[in-house]
Parts: sequence; C-alpha cells; structure tokens
Amino acid sequence: MIVLQQEMRFEKPLNVPKIKDVKIHSDFWSRYISLVGNVVVPYQWEILNDKIEGVEKSSAIRNFKIAAGLEQGDFYGMVFQDSDVYKWLEAASYVLEANYNEDLDRKVNEVIDLIEKAQWEDGYINTYFTIKEPQNRWTNLQECHELYCAGHLIEAAVAYYLATGNDRLLNIARKFADHINNVFGPDEGKLKGYPGHQEIELALIKLYEVTKDERYLNLARYFIEERGKEPYYFDIEWEKRGRTEHWPGLIRNFGREYAQTHLPVRKQKEAVGHAVRATYMYSAMADIARITKDEELLETCKALFKDIVTRKMYITGGIGASAHGESFSFEYDLPNDRAYAETCASVGLIFFAHRMFLVDHNSYYYDVIEQILYNNIIGSMSLDGRSYFYVNPLEVIPKACEKRWDTQHVKVPRQRWFGCACCPPNVARLLSSIGKYIYAYSENELYVNLYISNEYEVDIGENKVKIILNSDYPFGDNVLLRINVKNPLAFDLKLRIPKWCVEYKVFVNGKEENNYKKEKEYVVINKTWKNNDEIFLNLITLPKRVKSHPRVKDNIGKVAIMKGPILFCLEEVDNGPNLHELFISKDSRLEIKFEEQILNGLYVVYADGYRIDEEDFGKELYREDYEYKLLPVKLKFIPYYAWANRGKNEMRVWINEI
Amino acid sequence: MIVLQQEMRFEKPLNVPKIKDVKIHSDFWSRYISLVGNVVVPYQWEILNDKIEGVEKSSAIRNFKIAAGLEQGDFYGMVFQDSDVYKWLEAASYVLEANYNEDLDRKVNEVIDLIEKAQWEDGYINTYFTIKEPQNRWTNLQECHELYCAGHLIEAAVAYYLATGNDRLLNIARKFADHINNVFGPDEGKLKGYPGHQEIELALIKLYEVTKDERYLNLARYFIEERGKEPYYFDIEWEKRGRTEHWPGLIRNFGREYAQTHLPVRKQKEAVGHAVRATYMYSAMADIARITKDEELLETCKALFKDIVTRKMYITGGIGASAHGESFSFEYDLPNDRAYAETCASVGLIFFAHRMFLVDHNSYYYDVIEQILYNNIIGSMSLDGRSYFYVNPLEVIPKACEKRWDTQHVKVPRQRWFGCACCPPNVARLLSSIGKYIYAYSENELYVNLYISNEYEVDIGENKVKIILNSDYPFGDNVLLRINVKNPLAFDLKLRIPKWCVEYKVFVNGKEENNYKKEKEYVVINKTWKNNDEIFLNLITLPKRVKSHPRVKDNIGKVAIMKGPILFCLEEVDNGPNLHELFISKDSRLEIKFEEQILNGLYVVYADGYRIDEEDFGKELYREDYEYKLLPVKLKFIPYYAWANRGKNEMRVWINEI
Repeated sequence: MIVLQQEMRFEKPLNVPKIKDVKIHSDFWSRYISLVGNVVVPYQWEILNDKIEGVEKSSAIRNFKIAAGLEQGDFYGMVFQDSDVYKWLEAASYVLEANYNEDLDRKVNEVIDLIEKAQWEDGYINTYFTIKEPQNRWTNLQECHELYCAGHLIEAAVAYYLATGNDRLLNIARKFADHINNVFGPDEGKLKGYPGHQEIELALIKLYEVTKDERYLNLARYFIEERGKEPYYFDIEWEKRGRTEHWPGLIRNFGREYAQTHLPVRKQKEAVGHAVRATYMYSAMADIARITKDEELLETCKALFKDIVTRKMYITGGIGASAHGESFSFEYDLPNDRAYAETCASVGLIFFAHRMFLVDHNSYYYDVIEQILYNNIIGSMSLDGRSYFYVNPLEVIPKACEKRWDTQHVKVPRQRWFGCACCPPNVARLLSSIGKYIYAYSENELYVNLYISNEYEVDIGENKVKIILNSDYPFGDNVLLRINVKNPLAFDLKLRIPKWCVEYKVFVNGKEENNYKKEKEYVVINKTWKNNDEIFLNLITLPKRVKSHPRVKDNIGKVAIMKGPILFCLEEVDNGPNLHELFISKDSRLEIKFEEQILNGLYVVYADGYRIDEEDFGKELYREDYEYKLLPVKLKFIPYYAWANRGKNEMRVWINEI
Repeated sequence: MIVLQQEMRFEKPLNVPKIKDVKIHSDFWSRYISLVGNVVVPYQWEILNDKIEGVEKSSAIRNFKIAAGLEQGDFYGMVFQDSDVYKWLEAASYVLEANYNEDLDRKVNEVIDLIEKAQWEDGYINTYFTIKEPQNRWTNLQECHELYCAGHLIEAAVAYYLATGNDRLLNIARKFADHINNVFGPDEGKLKGYPGHQEIELALIKLYEVTKDERYLNLARYFIEERGKEPYYFDIEWEKRGRTEHWPGLIRNFGREYAQTHLPVRKQKEAVGHAVRATYMYSAMADIARITKDEELLETCKALFKDIVTRKMYITGGIGASAHGESFSFEYDLPNDRAYAETCASVGLIFFAHRMFLVDHNSYYYDVIEQILYNNIIGSMSLDGRSYFYVNPLEVIPKACEKRWDTQHVKVPRQRWFGCACCPPNVARLLSSIGKYIYAYSENELYVNLYISNEYEVDIGENKVKIILNSDYPFGDNVLLRINVKNPLAFDLKLRIPKWCVEYKVFVNGKEENNYKKEKEYVVINKTWKNNDEIFLNLITLPKRVKSHPRVKDNIGKVAIMKGPILFCLEEVDNGPNLHELFISKDSRLEIKFEEQILNGLYVVYADGYRIDEEDFGKELYREDYEYKLLPVKLKFIPYYAWANRGKNEMRVWINEI
C-alpha cells in the first residue's frame, strides 16, 4: 500500500479537465452517462415537480414557488429539500456542458428564476425558513441545513457557470455567500457557528477557485477551523433558541461524533460519525491543505483517509457500516447484511480521494476511486436508471429486510425515489461529470487516470493536444492511446497502473518498452510526441479470490471474487435460494465469460462449488458429530453493479470457501 | 426426534411433586438453590424496597404503600411494576416451602398486608391504576398489563398457599379473580377482552387446580379462545378510550403478531411475536388441552412447540432472536451477536415443555428443559447470584455492544437490576421450584426426569416411597437410586434416557439388565420394589461437536461444543481477543477436565486449534490470492453458564472449524 509507505508531498498544482473537453465514447460508460442525460435528469425533473405518481412526493420546486410568492401553500418535505433542486441543477449543468440542449437549459433557467425570486434582499435563500420560520434563520445550524443547502446552491452555480458561461446563478450564489460571510466569522458581532451538515466548505472553495475572491476561501477555512472548539456552538445556539429541537430526540442525541464536532478538525485522526458529513468535510480539508500548503492539515487528511480505506471501507467502496446515524462504525466492523454504505457517502469518498490525488499525484487514490465507481456507485442505480439504492448492502435476504428491524434500512429492490432524496441526484452529478476524473495535467505533464474511452482536447503549456483513448479495461486488458499534436511536443505522459494489474506492458508506436520510470504507480513516458503517436498499454487483470483482513469478523472463511476493480456477487436467480449454503472450491478455476442474454450483456464468472444438502441434515435444528453433505454445483457470479435488476432476490458478495 | 414421529396421546394424568417433598442435595444445584434463598430473594427484597444504592430504582413496594394509603407520593416504574413483587412472593414461597424461615415469612406477610390494603372493595388490585388513573381501569388491556399483574398475583397466592397452607393471599387473589370474572366473559355487559400480555390464563388454571372452582378454568379458556378474533378488541378499546396510548407509537405499532392476536389461537401454527407472551400463552393452551382433552388445541400446541424447537431455538435454549418487540424472528434466523433470547422467554419455554410432558409423557420435552436449564437459565445469573442477564447472546464483542445500535440491547457484564425487572425474579421462582421438575408420578408409576441429587418422599398409590438419588450427571455418568419402602411395592420406575447419552446401562441391585422395555425414551422397570433396592444408571455423555441446521446462516462453517446438555463457549480471558480468528481442528480431541482454580471449580474442555496470524496478513483491508497463516493454539472452553464472571470480555459459542 503505497500511500502508507511514503511521505506525502505537495506536488505541483494540476488542472482538472473541463467536462466539455472530454468526449466519452466508452460503450460501458456512455450508457450510464446517456442514462443520466436522457433518463435520470429528466425523470428527476418530473419528480421535483411532483409529476410522477406512486413515488415519494418531492414538492421541492413547489417550495421555491411558494417562497418566491408565486404560489400559495405550505412547505413540504425535509428541511433540506432545497438541496435536491440544487443537486439536480448541478447534474443538469454537467449534462449541458457535455452536450448542450436548449430544452434542458430552459428548465434550468426556470429554476434560476424561482431561486432569484426566492432570494431575500440580503441574499438569504432557503425555502423552509422563508415559508415556515422566517424569524428563525440561522438559529439552528445543528439540525436545519441552511448552510448545507447554500453549499449545494454554490456548487450548482459554479457548475452552471463553467458549463455555459452564464453567470446568473453564480451571482445569486455570490450574493448568498456574501450574506453568509456577513453573518459568520471571527469578527465581533458575527455568529461563531458552522454547519450541522458539512458541504458549504468545499462549495466555497469552488467559488473561490472560480472567482479568486479570497473571502470565500477564508470563510471555508473559518468553518473548518471553528468546528469542534469549546465552548460548543451547538449547545450555545440551542440554549439561545430556548432548547427547541427540529427533530426532537434525534440529531442532538447522536452525540458529537455524528457531525464530527467532537474535536477540533486537526485533532481528528479517525473517521467517525455520519459518513457523508465526514467525507464532505475531509474533501474541503484536503482542498485547503493543497491551496494553503498546510502540512498539518494534510497529515490529518492522510490519517483519516488511511483510517477509512484500511479499516472502514467495504470491498464495494461503500462506507458507513452503521444505519444508526448513517455512520462509520468502529474499525473492522463491516457486517455485510447490515451495511449502510450510503450512496452519497461513496460519492463523498470519491471527492475526498480525488482531492488527495491532486495534492500527492499518487495512483493509490485512483485505485480507491475506481473501486467505488465500478461497484457502490453504479450499483446504486438500476440498469434502466429509474430506481436507486440509498443503502448498499453486500448480503441480502429479502425476508430479513422485511422481518428484522436491524436490516429494515436495506430496501430491495431499488426504490424509485426517497423521502430523503439525497442519493439519486448525487449519483447523477457524479456520473455526468465523470470526464473530469479521467485526466489531470500541468504545463508539461498529462496524467491518464481512468481508462474510459474518450477523446480529449487539452492545452499542455500553450499547445493543443488531442488524446484519443480506446479501452476495454477493466473487462478486457487493452488501452490504446493516440496523440494528436500540430507540432512535436515534449511532455510527460503518465499512465496509471491500477493496483489490480497482475502484469502490464507498454508499447510506443508498436515497440515494447520496459525501462520507463515508474512514479507512484504511474509509468512516466518522457518523450517528444509527434502527431499520431500511439501508445498501447496492456493492463492484465484476472478474476481473483479476495480475502478480508482477519479482523473483519463476518468474512472469515469467505472470499469475494473480483476482476480488477469489478466485484462479483451471487444472486438467487442464478444460484437458487439460501446462498449462505454455497461454497466455492479453493482450487476451482474462475472462468470469465461474456453472456449476451443476461441483462443485455454481462461479464459473468463461473466456478465449481458445492451446496449443502439440507435433506441429509434432516429436520432437527442441531446435530452432534455431523458433517454436512456437499453436492457439487456450478456457481455463477455476476458483477455487483448489476445485482437486483431481475426482481427481488437474495444476493451475497462474500461466499464460503472450502 | 421422537416428538415428530409419533402421534401425541392423552396419557393418564400425572402428579407433580410438592417442593417440600424433594430435598435437593446436589452440589451443583444446591448452590443455585441456596443462592436463591440466601442471596437472590433477600437481595431482591432490598431492591423492591429501594434499599440498594446504585441500581435501577424499583419503588415496587412503595407503590403498594401509596396505593394502600400508607404513604404519600406518586407511582414510580413500569405499568407492570407490581408483578416484580408478585414474582418475588412466588419465589419466596418456594423458598419457604423448601426450607421454612420465620423472617422471610414475616416479610411475605408484610407484603400481603400491603396487597390486602391496596385491594379495592370490588377485588381490584393494581397500584398503577389505583394511584394514577383510577377512572381508567380495564380501558387499555393491550398496553397496561392489569391482567398480567393479576396473573402473577394468583401464581404467588397459589404458591404461598401450597407452601404454608396459609390462605390469606389466596383469598385476596380469589377475590380479584372473581372480580375479573365479573368484568370479562361472554355474558352480555361484560368486556370481551383479553390481556395484552398473556399470563393470567396459566395462573387461573393453577387457581382452578387448587380450588377446583371451574369458573377459573372457564375464564382462562375464554381469554384463550377470544384472542385474535374479529372485531379486534384492542382496536375497540382504543377507539373507546379516545385513541390514547400508554406507550405512544410503541406497542400498537408492533403489529398484531406481537401479542399473538393475529389469528384465533387454534389457527396459530407458527411461533411469532413477543416470546414471553407466546410461551405463557402456549403453556395455558397445553394445560387446557390436557385438562379438557382437547385434541385440536393439543395439535396446535404440538405444532407451536415443534416450530420453536426445530426452527427458532438457540442452542442455549434461548428463544426470541429479535430485540425488536423482544420477539421470535422468522424460521432459522438465529444471529448469535444480536440474539435477544430473553431470560423470561426461556423460563416460559420450560413451562410450556413441562406442560407438554404432562400430556404426552415423552422424554423429548425434558431434553429441551434440560438444555434450557443448564445454559440459558443458569447462565443468566452471575455465579454470585447478584447480577443478571435480561438478554442472553451467543457471541459478544463488548465494543460492538457499546458502539453498534443493533447490539446495544446486549449488556455485558450482567446488570445488578433492570428498569424492567421481569427476569431476575422469574429465574428465582424457577430455580427455587426446581424440585417439582425432577419427578412425576401416578398411582403406579414414577418418572425420574432430571438427575439432580435429592431425597424424595412420595405416595405411590397409598404407599409411602422414599427415593434417594445421587448423581453426578451431566458432568459425570453416574446415577444411583435407592428405593425405600415399608413393604414390597410394585410400580413402574421410568428412567429418562436423555438424548445426549451415547450409551446407557442399567443395573438393578448390581445386576446389569438389557431387556427393559423402553417407552418414549424412558427405560421402564416394572418390578415389585423391596426396601433398599438399588438402581445404578450409567448415562454416558461425551464432549461433542454440534452443527446447526444449514439454514442457520450465521453458523455455517462453525461448531459448538457440548457435553450432554452442557454447552461450552470460548472467553477472551482464556483465549485472547478476536475469538472469531480462532479455529478448532476437525480432528482434535475434546479433552474435558475439572479445574479447581477457575471460578471455584469448573469442567473445562481443551482442544487443538489455530489462530489466524494477523501480522502475516498485513495492514491492508483486502488481499488477493491470499491464504491466512494459521498458528497452532490450544483452545479452552468453559461452560456457557459460567461466562462473564471474570469481567467484561469477548465470548463466542459457535467457533470456526477447519
């Protein structure tokens, strides 16, 4: 594990691609991206406008109409309902950036009209408080998500501005941010608070990066540094407002770890509490560390990242092992059937990992991103893009989800929408912006991080370079890059070697090269590139048995099957019920095949195994001196991301080995 | 499994010993019994009188003083707080019956004075309603436990009467029972209700058996038969009282299965809902079936018993796999770490099993009783008798109990008392009456069911017989019975052969006999007994590996160690932390030894096994193509009943096998 072995450094700053510059044409990913553009974003639009029958009512747009004075009625939904609109706006902006369409832009502008009208004179926007408690603005940061919603507005505004150059929403967001800057901060008379749900911190940094206005960076830092200090702000505001609670007995009872206010952030070395709050905060911390070259803060980020990835992350890339408080559990406590592994938390961990890469330029962070992306993230969405998991378990027995209180947070199959609808738009904004995760560059280097087929136009230094990348990785082994330049151009091409490659080969213009320098698991090709130079990268991954650290109690005696970052699982529809009665043979070959007839085509793994003969055991519950009789079976594994697309049925990632 | 293979029959009625007639002198059991008499009952007396610092306040006696008009103040505790007093009275009565002492009898009579003074003119007794809601008597049967408390009063009254011949409390209880009979029943103007928590049914049958007043039997039958009928009484009373709830959002939300009101009882073939409610009800059903020779009801009891024992019972004899509603989970769902397995539910299952034996005279029921008794029951109490488990898990990681919401019902180590203190007095009343479970008899037969050393005087027909039983079973193999009779007397001596015996031998007056008849796993010795006849029974049990039915998901790949009914477990104090990293070798010998230095002497099992080498695995969370390195270790198992007597530490019953 590379990240553990070496000191992190502040490497030189890298740029991240604009979405519009990366034209994805991967069969695999284009389907997801076009689903977001053609299905998810339009479908969520209908939901936000309460036009879909039979799903949880949203009212999110209607709340804005009421707050804007355009409709009569009462606020409906969660106190953070506005954020669904903002996350949709952000996703829609990425869709527009990749592929402009007027109809969508018109809808976006309709929403911007509403937001503009719902904005107070002083810049404040929040439909819940505007409609229900205008006198109580900023009195309950711990529970009421005003700063969280503000953060999502800012993220949407930056996204829309970068997508279209249109600064309408950006100006609204700046006006709100300025208001927030007037309300909060170290100066006398300002509130010494910080959000109950972190989000605005990373958003303010985005705003700073677009506007270069340092007040936003400083405000983000203020929120980060003030957190967890004594006297405890959430008690101060609670006393001040007369000890009222928005969710009586809930949020305040979770304890201080829940929102990471148990310690000043620099003292936090273990990931605890609500996993989404945590990763959003860590992301902002990594940004601040990078921008301000803050070594202590970077060390904190490193410790937190390490704690997550080496002690608290499911093999799916899911995090948050406890439904109670949607939170991290203690180290190595990763039960498969009771996993929470909220979709949003995985999105947050990708944000955090990407920001850590931007500091340290280490392939390790992309191994984590790849693992999350191919499993927890795309697995959270049905293959038709119309239903979603909020909770992403690694083992499901539908009867247990219905009957046991401690697994009832696991909803199978996927749901069409949620009362708390944070996850679907979060996935939409991630998938629609996936292009920006493929590359990173500076004036003399280009990192290739994800082998997703695409064409990319980028300025390296002052020179236009076009990269044409074709790849069947991770299902296949082949990556072909063509470089188009007007004039020969020297730069370092840095090709990531994912950790799951058992072997790799690099060919430049047909000639194999073995003596390239390797830095932090990147092959560095330092060369003066000519037009149509071709790099062929052979990244060999094989289906493998994976074992957990022995401290992970529930996985003893079990293996998971992966090929590269792709995790496989057993489903009842392929293997019959009672998947826990199946064993994979230690010596059986893992045979991978593409099968066209299953869910429009999937890579499937077959292996020899056994099933316990229940009949031989008989009808008693316990037997002395008995050996299970094992019947040979052929096991069929499908990729985890494709599970629960053929009805409600059992699923299992970790399978008994014999 | 015998009970499954043959039809049940109404065998001829059997008598159960009086406690006073059975003088137990077993080293093992005398310790528990004297603990109950010398520690538990006096300690609980102090608690009920709020004289112990640092434990949950009881106020149970004080509530009676207030209700009796002797003190000022408010009711404190659960709505069923009175039942703690009644269960204590019942236990105290058994202690008095076995071993009369004036001081205890004086305390009992002090309480009877209070109860008498707290009784209303019309017979009603309940301190909660008397103090807090006198106008609302009988308006909330679903939640408020008036009939449940009445049942425990009746049980205590019968026990005290049988112990002492004093009918003071019996008369109070009859007056209350008569009142209840006036309030409830099929006649016009009476309430058509039944208890939210079953208990009064079996108590009324006891009252019937002592008084021979058939009204009590009929009222018990009424409560049983009315249950689960439409229209739904608990909705009717809820509407009638204006939809108020005693525990808002709790009991009513558990659904109808919770209190077994989902179906008329004769239609119930699966054990569901709150496990204590269930077993108390099934016990009454078995009584009614026996007394009234009701075949249909007996078939129902048989189906329910079979469902519990073959699909829903932990190997400890614990039942109720779900903390939510303290209830049975679905078939084969028996998670070890999240077990509820409430002590009271095991007590209830012993009641049910004993009553089934009284119908069918099958040893099978005693196998179940023995399994519960030696594990879940005595394991629920600390070896010093001063602390108790309410919840009896099969796997404990203290950190998980503290940190995970879904195992926080597991409290380690044992607690000194509980806000809901149903379990400690329940164990006390069971242990102090254990004598009556040892034998059963009719005019020409004597069943020996439990091999607990004792002397027993009984009338077989009209003849006095004394049995002197000395046994070291189940730790040793030896049972010696001596029969004292004045004149030679012919009767069938029926010796139970427990299911765990790998072999047994019977010697009568030193001569081995192999051709005795065997009936329902009893050896039947039909003989004219002479004074000082000696029967030596050799009951050979060996330490064994036990496997679960393969449907029990959490036990795949694992074994439990038992010798006879004694279940063993691993504790951290003997085997180090992370017990899930230990494996027992398939071929290792199970060596049993008595060790004096551990907890004043325990039988301990040693076996060869392995521990996973964590260091060899390294610091990553997942590894491809890796085999755990196993280090040889000697495993040390102690009896489950003795766990958690050496501080808070990990414990595990089901251990990985390799």
